Amino acid sequence: MRMYDLIYTKKMGGELAPDQIAFWVKGAAEGSIPDEQSAALLMAVCWQGMTTAETLALTLAMRDSGARMDLSSVPGVKVDKHSTGGVGDKTTLILGPIVAACGVPCPMFSGRGLGHTGGTVDKFAAIPGLKVELTEAEFLRSLRETRFANSAQTADIAPADRKLYALRDITATVESIPLITASIMSKKLAGGADALVLDVKCGPSAFMKTEAEARALAQSMVDVGTAHGLRMRALITRMDAPLGWAIGNALEVMESVEILRGAHGDSELAQMSFRLAAEMLLLAGAAPTLAAAQEQVRRSVETGSALETLRAFVRLNGGDARALDDFSRLPQAGQVVEIRADRSGYVHAIEGRALGLLAMELGAGRRDRSDVLDLGVGLRVAARVGQAVRPGDLLFEVHARAGAAVEPAAYRATVELAPGPTGRSPWLLGSIGI
Amino acid sequence: MRMYDLIYTKKMGGELAPDQIAFWVKGAAEGSIPDEQSAALLMAVCWQGMTTAETLALTLAMRDSGARMDLSSVPGVKVDKHSTGGVGDKTTLILGPIVAACGVPCPMFSGRGLGHTGGTVDKFAAIPGLKVELTEAEFLRSLRETRFANSAQTADIAPADRKLYALRDITATVESIPLITASIMSKKLAGGADALVLDVKCGPSAFMKTEAEARALAQSMVDVGTAHGLRMRALITRMDAPLGWAIGNALEVMESVEILRGAHGDSELAQMSFRLAAEMLLLAGAAPTLAAAQEQVRRSVETGSALETLRAFVRLNGGDARALDDFSRLPQAGQVVEIRADRSGYVHAIEGRALGLLAMELGAGRRDRSDVLDLGVGLRVAARVGQAVRPGDLLFEVHARAGAAVEPAAYRATVELAPGPTGRSPWLLGSIGI
Repeated sequence: MRMYDLIYTKKMGGELAPDQIAFWVKGAAEGSIPDEQSAALLMAVCWQGMTTAETLALTLAMRDSGARMDLSSVPGVKVDKHSTGGVGDKTTLILGPIVAACGVPCPMFSGRGLGHTGGTVDKFAAIPGLKVELTEAEFLRSLRETRFANSAQTADIAPADRKLYALRDITATVESIPLITASIMSKKLAGGADALVLDVKCGPSAFMKTEAEARALAQSMVDVGTAHGLRMRALITRMDAPLGWAIGNALEVMESVEILRGAHGDSELAQMSFRLAAEMLLLAGAAPTLAAAQEQVRRSVETGSALETLRAFVRLNGGDARALDDFSRLPQAGQVVEIRADRSGYVHAIEGRALGLLAMELGAGRRDRSDVLDLGVGLRVAARVGQAVRPGDLLFEVHARAGAAVEPAAYRATVELAPGPTGRSPWLLGSIGI
Repeated sequence: MRMYDLIYTKKMGGELAPDQIAFWVKGAAEGSIPDEQSAALLMAVCWQGMTTAETLALTLAMRDSGARMDLSSVPGVKVDKHSTGGVGDKTTLILGPIVAACGVPCPMFSGRGLGHTGGTVDKFAAIPGLKVELTEAEFLRSLRETRFANSAQTADIAPADRKLYALRDITATVESIPLITASIMSKKLAGGADALVLDVKCGPSAFMKTEAEARALAQSMVDVGTAHGLRMRALITRMDAPLGWAIGNALEVMESVEILRGAHGDSELAQMSFRLAAEMLLLAGAAPTLAAAQEQVRRSVETGSALETLRAFVRLNGGDARALDDFSRLPQAGQVVEIRADRSGYVHAIEGRALGLLAMELGAGRRDRSDVLDLGVGLRVAARVGQAVRPGDLLFEVHARAGAAVEPAAYRATVELAPGPTGRSPWLLGSIGI
């Protein structure tokens, strides 16, 4: 088999066979295929696309390059969730405990933040003492005892994806639906769940800018998962602002716990988290209808069983569960600076990406992978899309390190003001799947 | 400037600025830009194409990576020719002396053969003693004294093209009109001529398979040359068989000399060589009309002045000019094997590529760049497209090394027989330029 022939076939719009794709991924990971040939094939894939069969073959080849989690010792349909990510997205902290509290095992692997995006692992790390890198035994124990487990993705999961991602990153080949699909799905399949709910966000600050792109990515992931025998469902959600009021690790824990306590029930963050949790219950077969699943979700919050599941998860994995009830035990910022509006208008959008970068600069995110976070810093977003704003109104509370300079203009610039009220689509734009 | 931005721009269908292209070519040649980034950009160019301005910038950046010939000391409009190549194409040996004999300086740099294609340098090398790697001083002296000069392209001409070509060769990015254009034109512009006639061949054995592809390549080269101030003209020519009766270096010298002696005047090889020579004269301003140029060409052959120019060129550069009049002084093959037809039919086409590979196996061409040629071996093609063939008719004379095995079936298989006469387009399919 010659790598040249694979590149030529794809360049000419042909379909690669599973053994050809496996040959490529193995060779790329081992270094027997030179990076320039992989780069040419990656660009040819951006150009010509991949069929579902090709994307599945790529997914499986990348999954098989590393370790896989065996969840067969845990009874029940295990259900996972993946979000394409957004600033302020802490849905995992909310829906994981809810789904587990409703009796469905919820095994999750999360990433660390880089650049403007935060990572779920970093958010959990804001809970004092909580171990966020679980061994396989610890992960399985957590899943069996609390039905919820969350751990940082280890380096031995899909190393071929990491190798190819590094190459995509410097060759402008990140943006390709089959390549994104295979990168996400290889890690999800390695995680071992039986069912997967996807939250594909779209909007100016999201990875997918248009609804058509988001829908195409969601369809591709659903197709690949379904072809492999997973139960799949995807929601397409609007992303025109940070999700919820909190950006920054300890602040996001606070907001998540408040929602599990029953606060902010009509916020988009709560609605989205509850809906995703309900879809997970439905997909796992734990409820006959979406309405019944939603009722289960509502009760798990109302009765406090979801919050109690989070407490149990934290306790089991070395964390200080008292911090969930007494936020003063969470990391705190050295100073809080209020940013107020200096002109009037209606909030049309809030630039999540720019706010994410500002939060990164505060110390809530990483510029480089080696950066150490300040888990107490971040932002409280007071402005809301659709709201009428007047000079002097509070836009943000900046939770910064003591002595750090805070430049109000940079924060104000993230709030897009329109002269009059503007229409806004509902947060749920569509769904794909069973 | 970041290479990533260049790749992204081209991937999205944008246009690169000349300084961006110069940055890339310099970095690729020096090694400061990694090959995987160049490979991704090359594939993106295959996908999105290049404007004339981009292709010219690429051409100039590759030209400027190496040495350039300065022909300003030679008076007159210097005219060069480039052919996209075909098996048996020895037009340079014929038209170079003709154009020079008609008073127009004809400076040419040629390549060595590789694989199924022969190289003009190898053909000249079959003339005993002829120096085919001229120094700049020798090249200029030959051009001044005989108006004809031909030398092997030296390694210091457009080294960036060589580097990128090696990368294209393993990444399936050879076939791209702007990349082919820049590769050819960078070397032609480095050669320093003022005018350039192109022979773009098309057909199953040619580099361009269809007339549309050939026309697009010709137009691209004419556009780039014209944008740089060169006088340009291109012929699109049919390629459904080897050109002329000879394949192999000494045999091709013999055929060329025979045509300069006035033989085979109605053969396609003669017609094509004469037409290209006339276009060169016209382009150089040495004749007012194509008909007048064609008359000059005819006279240069009829009076023997073209052949005398070839003799002078050979003598000046150390060659044995007597070999042009006494072919027994040229390298000879050890044995001649006749291949005869074993069935009837009408010759529809003769596979040049397959015959080129057979000639390579005889020793007339190189499998690897380091192979040493046997200049006396090759083929005499007796079959003609359109001809009716009966069992026993001569198809080929194989001039092989003494003792070499010759497999008739492989030769017969290159002659495509149809049950009845088939139509054939004229050899000149079209032209582009002033």
